[in-house]
Amino acid sequence: MGHPLGTIARLTKREALVEITTAVRSLRAVRYYSDQEIEPAQVRRWVDTARWTGSSKNSQPWRFVTVRDSDRLEALSRLGEHAGHLEGCAVAVAIGMRPGPHPFATALDLGRVVQSLMLAAHADGVGSCVAVFEPAGNVRRAGEMLGAGDELVIDLAIGFGHADHTAEPAAGPSPPDRLPVDVLLRDERFNDV
Amino acid sequence: MGHPLGTIARLTKREALVEITTAVRSLRAVRYYSDQEIEPAQVRRWVDTARWTGSSKNSQPWRFVTVRDSDRLEALSRLGEHAGHLEGCAVAVAIGMRPGPHPFATALDLGRVVQSLMLAAHADGVGSCVAVFEPAGNVRRAGEMLGAGDELVIDLAIGFGHADHTAEPAAGPSPPDRLPVDVLLRDERFNDV
Repeated sequence: MGHPLGTIARLTKREALVEITTAVRSLRAVRYYSDQEIEPAQVRRWVDTARWTGSSKNSQPWRFVTVRDSDRLEALSRLGEHAGHLEGCAVAVAIGMRPGPHPFATALDLGRVVQSLMLAAHADGVGSCVAVFEPAGNVRRAGEMLGAGDELVIDLAIGFGHADHTAEPAAGPSPPDRLPVDVLLRDERFNDV
Repeated sequence: MGHPLGTIARLTKREALVEITTAVRSLRAVRYYSDQEIEPAQVRRWVDTARWTGSSKNSQPWRFVTVRDSDRLEALSRLGEHAGHLEGCAVAVAIGMRPGPHPFATALDLGRVVQSLMLAAHADGVGSCVAVFEPAGNVRRAGEMLGAGDELVIDLAIGFGHADHTAEPAAGPSPPDRLPVDVLLRDERFNDV
């Protein structure tokens, strides 16, 4: 069957691996954004990519709404402890969840589509950062604000924009501190160490 | 600052975009696997990529355990309605979750790392499929089986392996049915249509 990327890519398998691995490894939260605009067609392309993300029983429990209105962005930025960056983003994409029988599986599916969407923007040179709305009262407020009705729950939005590194705090962004593989990975049983 | 992929990639921005977009769009669940082995070093590389995934307050609420033992894989394959593919995979990676104060945010983070891990394998030409353990009794059983102790909850595992298309049901895999962008995406409010 050949390599799954082979029909479109002109790269060798090795080169494709490097590209995708680099994209996943280099994706970082971007919380400060320049004035550079994001075209509606660009967001549409990211959604057109992310919609291929797999989900439990192919439920595709996600719907998307773009938010550009500055009053609405400011209001959304107050709905979570770490949602402040939504105020300054070029465009936010709020995600409406269609609840399923297994809340964990549905939230997991949303996480997968979030990562796909952020990677699609990242490949485009556009930064992003997730904002989770909390507690429950703020989830309800987000739903009202975005006309979600009874079928969708708005637990989160992603802020998108080109990075403005001059706007970062003087100390600069915190270092990308990640646990090493030796801490994260075990063989056969977690306690066999 | 240039393009985020620019320092490593030799491709133009346009070409990098195509590669990553293609990878996200072409990732499909693979449930039937050939006998071809997956080296431990390969899984290690995928984890080394996925560990860069962002998470709420950089909590990195994920731990990974590889499972190759056939009895253990068979037992895990019985812990969810759609976990059967774990029995035939070359290697499974079970994910241990460290619970945080916001269960939704933690599950969302796991979804992000799942997508990163599956994309890293996909770039390598290796297929995968998520298995969620359910109901709660099966989550407990998975934890006991994998020595998770009190600090980790084992809600899911991913089966990995090279695709065996000859093993698929005679009807072939179901078509990759996905909702179109026009159904998924709205502007400003969900009900403004």
